[in-house]
Amino acid sequence: MSFFAVIMAGGVGKRFWPQSRRATPKQLLSIAGRESMLRMTVDRIKNLTSPDQILIITNSEQKAGIRKEIPELPEINILIEPEGKNTAPAIGLAAIVVQKRDPDAVMGIFPADHFIDDIESFTGFMEQGISVAREKKGLVTFGVIPTRPATGYGYIQYHGRAKSDKPVYAVKAFAEKPDLVTASLFIKSGDFLWNSGIFVWHVDAILKSFQQFLPEIWDSLKNIKGAIDKPIWDSVLTVEWATLRSISIDYGVMEKAKNVFVVKVDFTWNDVGSWDAVHEMREKDEAGNVSKGHVLYHNAKNNLVYAEGKTVAMVGVENLVVIDTADALLIIPRGQTESVKELVEAFEKEKRDSLL
Amino acid sequence: MSFFAVIMAGGVGKRFWPQSRRATPKQLLSIAGRESMLRMTVDRIKNLTSPDQILIITNSEQKAGIRKEIPELPEINILIEPEGKNTAPAIGLAAIVVQKRDPDAVMGIFPADHFIDDIESFTGFMEQGISVAREKKGLVTFGVIPTRPATGYGYIQYHGRAKSDKPVYAVKAFAEKPDLVTASLFIKSGDFLWNSGIFVWHVDAILKSFQQFLPEIWDSLKNIKGAIDKPIWDSVLTVEWATLRSISIDYGVMEKAKNVFVVKVDFTWNDVGSWDAVHEMREKDEAGNVSKGHVLYHNAKNNLVYAEGKTVAMVGVENLVVIDTADALLIIPRGQTESVKELVEAFEKEKRDSLL
Repeated sequence: MSFFAVIMAGGVGKRFWPQSRRATPKQLLSIAGRESMLRMTVDRIKNLTSPDQILIITNSEQKAGIRKEIPELPEINILIEPEGKNTAPAIGLAAIVVQKRDPDAVMGIFPADHFIDDIESFTGFMEQGISVAREKKGLVTFGVIPTRPATGYGYIQYHGRAKSDKPVYAVKAFAEKPDLVTASLFIKSGDFLWNSGIFVWHVDAILKSFQQFLPEIWDSLKNIKGAIDKPIWDSVLTVEWATLRSISIDYGVMEKAKNVFVVKVDFTWNDVGSWDAVHEMREKDEAGNVSKGHVLYHNAKNNLVYAEGKTVAMVGVENLVVIDTADALLIIPRGQTESVKELVEAFEKEKRDSLL
Repeated sequence: MSFFAVIMAGGVGKRFWPQSRRATPKQLLSIAGRESMLRMTVDRIKNLTSPDQILIITNSEQKAGIRKEIPELPEINILIEPEGKNTAPAIGLAAIVVQKRDPDAVMGIFPADHFIDDIESFTGFMEQGISVAREKKGLVTFGVIPTRPATGYGYIQYHGRAKSDKPVYAVKAFAEKPDLVTASLFIKSGDFLWNSGIFVWHVDAILKSFQQFLPEIWDSLKNIKGAIDKPIWDSVLTVEWATLRSISIDYGVMEKAKNVFVVKVDFTWNDVGSWDAVHEMREKDEAGNVSKGHVLYHNAKNNLVYAEGKTVAMVGVENLVVIDTADALLIIPRGQTESVKELVEAFEKEKRDSLL
């Protein structure tokens, strides 16, 4: 019985424009440390399994960049979605590929672009989740003890008693991103955790859930599975994929399934959702500035400046995010960086391909 | 009797960092229009005299850039100061060179880096000043009717009655840059004008003033004059120049001389003293933004953005000055751009030559 890790690396991370582009998405950027987020994710997972059992699911635009960044993975471990259909179809695709390699495998789902600081703690909690999944006890999620009423995360509510002596609880409900009042109630109640987007399950368990809750996707997955390692793979995948609806694993499966557990984890976790999150999590100078590159501050505080290859002089300015690249420069106040996504979506509508 | 124009182009314009550098000083930048300020100055003067009677006084670091920008001037018309000694020595040097070419010349002094919009009006007022100087009536200044109590300009107070039917007045006093209260009193009084830094005089008149008020400079100028067109020119100039004190023509001559007149002009004039001045004088979009380059504004107003060769996205920010160059980026609020000079002077002290 083996453990396969599936890294979800299909997103662009539009909120990290102008650094994030179609060919250099968020997970290939070094925004949360010295290494790219994908490299940090893979290195973290290497304590759990070997590179030939790590799969990355992405799209054709990102494939070259990912292979260059993670050369130790066999090429067949890079799965290419014909088009983005949210997380459920991607996870289903990974599950049939894993099942083909080992019908008795336990698999984990890991976002490529989240920050986790303590690898040892991470490894320990993952092993606990894997052991729960190995006993086929259901679908295992990982919930982070919240430190503030965040409105940018989904929440998991759990039943108060742990299973045995492990920090594993039955899940009562999933909650999508709440407003601030609701989030504050969640924090006060004490039985809500942040949904980390990490999942562990036996391939049988997740595929049975597809069969039960997403039968039309399940039908496509069966057809796709029949084409694995055959010349018809590309054409079958493309045809079936086009018929699938976009749906998240949370909405499509997790919220409906009964056998869902959560491992309550206490490592530092951040989904690094925006430039604001980068400012929050990175080390600051005495004036609260976070810098990458050669930045001079004069009477300037609480800024985030990422600019490589040039000198930046920040004079008399506060709470600014400044991201400079070879062909684009973004200047936006801290607290507004969520809206960068809308900016990029406007570029998409206007077909400004050179900016995407 | 000829008219020689002398363009004062020795300054760097530190306040325009990071665009202004030792080799690309303010007068070679296109900050006030499509052309460089020096090109605009030369073109304005061409209505008054021919290129062989236009001299530019500068330093060795700027010579190559100036020759490239103004190729129509004979090389001998580019005078090189061995080192900057403020305006009086530079004007004295130009005066002896002009006197050598035509002892009966009238000469004008023109800053290379000021903005004047109406060439026709400018030409008319200059011709009036030249005719006053030609009658050897003394030292002629040009005073701009003030539109606000500016604290960044020197002022000229004049006696209330014009000489004949021309807008030419006897000067009562010069005033250095005033504080705001004083400047407001100047505006109310009605007999103060902005000192444009433009002067016209017969070479005899100015050199007699040197003899009278700056006798030690006058002695050096006589020695330098003896070396004109001789192989010893460079060595004599260097030796004499080293002995000269730094002093402005205003303080050294104009404030002391009795025979000073002012032509009251009404063309738009701006000394373009800082990035704030550029924002004030340039055409704005509906939201008050001034841009050079490809700049996108989203909920952003009253900014100045100069950035060529890349896309800039300004989101949710107001009253910022953003100057991007290949190797440096400045971000500073409007209203604080005078302090850019101090920033550059700090670079000088720290010997950050690549930034200068």
